[in-house]
Amino acid sequence: MSDAIPLHSADLKIPTIADVRAAAGRIAGQAVRTPLISSADLNARLGARVFLKPECLQRTGSFKFRGAYNAISAMNPKARERGVVACSSGNHAQGVAAAAQLFEMQATIVMPADAPQTKIERTRALGARVVAYDRASEDRDLIAQKVLAETGGTFVHPYNDAFVIAGQGTAGLEAADDIAEAGLSLDDVLVCTGGGGLTAGVCLSVHDRFPDARIYSVEPENFDDMARSLKSGTIQFNATTSGSLCDALLTPSPGETGFAINWKRLAGGLVVSDAQALSAVAWAFANLKLVLEPGGAVALAALLSGKIDVQGRTVLVVLSGGNVDAGMFETALRTAESPA
Amino acid sequence: MSDAIPLHSADLKIPTIADVRAAAGRIAGQAVRTPLISSADLNARLGARVFLKPECLQRTGSFKFRGAYNAISAMNPKARERGVVACSSGNHAQGVAAAAQLFEMQATIVMPADAPQTKIERTRALGARVVAYDRASEDRDLIAQKVLAETGGTFVHPYNDAFVIAGQGTAGLEAADDIAEAGLSLDDVLVCTGGGGLTAGVCLSVHDRFPDARIYSVEPENFDDMARSLKSGTIQFNATTSGSLCDALLTPSPGETGFAINWKRLAGGLVVSDAQALSAVAWAFANLKLVLEPGGAVALAALLSGKIDVQGRTVLVVLSGGNVDAGMFETALRTAESPA
Repeated sequence: MSDAIPLHSADLKIPTIADVRAAAGRIAGQAVRTPLISSADLNARLGARVFLKPECLQRTGSFKFRGAYNAISAMNPKARERGVVACSSGNHAQGVAAAAQLFEMQATIVMPADAPQTKIERTRALGARVVAYDRASEDRDLIAQKVLAETGGTFVHPYNDAFVIAGQGTAGLEAADDIAEAGLSLDDVLVCTGGGGLTAGVCLSVHDRFPDARIYSVEPENFDDMARSLKSGTIQFNATTSGSLCDALLTPSPGETGFAINWKRLAGGLVVSDAQALSAVAWAFANLKLVLEPGGAVALAALLSGKIDVQGRTVLVVLSGGNVDAGMFETALRTAESPA
Repeated sequence: MSDAIPLHSADLKIPTIADVRAAAGRIAGQAVRTPLISSADLNARLGARVFLKPECLQRTGSFKFRGAYNAISAMNPKARERGVVACSSGNHAQGVAAAAQLFEMQATIVMPADAPQTKIERTRALGARVVAYDRASEDRDLIAQKVLAETGGTFVHPYNDAFVIAGQGTAGLEAADDIAEAGLSLDDVLVCTGGGGLTAGVCLSVHDRFPDARIYSVEPENFDDMARSLKSGTIQFNATTSGSLCDALLTPSPGETGFAINWKRLAGGLVVSDAQALSAVAWAFANLKLVLEPGGAVALAALLSGKIDVQGRTVLVVLSGGNVDAGMFETALRTAESPA
């Protein structure tokens, strides 16, 4: 398909910490500077000092606003007039829609028809045009290419873009700054991982301050493309495109731009089951009083289910999003109530 | 009953802003300095600038830890050896239990048997001895007096105590500091109100910095003792002791110590229905990604249901707690889903 518009963003260079710092300047005053949360119970239980970065409290309910706003703010005004296009099951969708709304420009989001209802509704509420497609029978890339051809708009990739990765990295930058300010050093970092954009950004910002920190990607079962890619040293693909409750993390493979960072910097790739993710959602409800979506809870799930030994260590866990339908949330609460 | 041990705390003086500042020093490093949260959607909808103080993120899941820790840290070491006693349906219980645990002392909490299960379990998990009583047939004061006589312990009143009120006031102090630091002034404040301890503390700290701020108590229907007391100028009692979902706010009447502050400083007393409180719980789930209990959501409910006009104003809403059972939370989510 040589005549198709390629679905990557304008900027495929490998971002650096300087790009993360520049992103922090751009998003200041627009993104929420989320606090670090800690739980005395959790620290006592694990014999560790755990800091949770609740990106569910971020504008649009996930970290995605950071990258989307950074990418759009870096576009030239002429390009902005033609709008932006994105493909997303919902969190990047809302991030792009909210950022586009702030710049008073058009956003078109190609979303699977089976995405969580709350994500579709909220993307529309943010003024975006939503084009729904059937995951089984339609090709979202073709749909996006058609929109791009019609509008002359700019594609904002959810993770394979230097500006997006740099924007997501500001979550790690804030956490690293806060931990350093408390006079502490960071030993382990757990990040929820889909295409690896947040993960790569967090690697840049955390390693800038704490070069010895061990950073782990965390993925849901059957979507462990990052874990396998890290082992093999080359980008691996998932055998399936659906079948996990962690809708935010169902990417086909690690993005190349982020992987150039992740494969050198990650200490390993962890994998949790959907049941462990749901259990972490319920634990966060009862103990943190935070609403997490399953995909936003996998890093916490890895911690709670003992995937790494954190005894005596200082740990950062990124809680990446909270855009969950009431029905799924109730499922998580009920699963946790019944004996395992 | 002249031979009974009176159930008030040691210190019934009227606290001042100096006491709140002293409390801030005592709780530093033990209590969570909760952030201010804002919602772009909410601000746009109301045409206001709203700051939410999420005390559900506080240690033990409610603001109560602040006052309990302040009161216990002010006790002399000899008295601490004999332990503390408290009566509470659950939030003060956990606050006192957690504070006592940090001082390695015994806490005995007299709790109604029908308190939310999560509150009873967590109070026990914090090392406290829980004495359950039947609301209908037993007198909790008599039970507490018996424990005090046996142990020689100190009673920590949930709101009729200068140290407790000063401790709760630190929530307002932090919010006022943050709002002043952002270069803003505060116009309206909404506080969830039971016995009025938090409300009185917030009056002291907010008015110290913003003397013209209008501060409102918010209570559930049929437990509007503060609203009626403000109107009449004398302490009024509720006709009933149960029958609202807002278990945290079912006090018989405003405490005298706090009322000495509240009646002079409050701009008025607002009242919301249980349905409005549940709807606010559901709204916070979907929009803030925060878990609130119904009693911790009444101030937000007053805002969302338009009890005061906030157009063009800067508003602080205290979200006072998030200790809610999964069953009640599911009820809130389902109530919100069904058409009104």
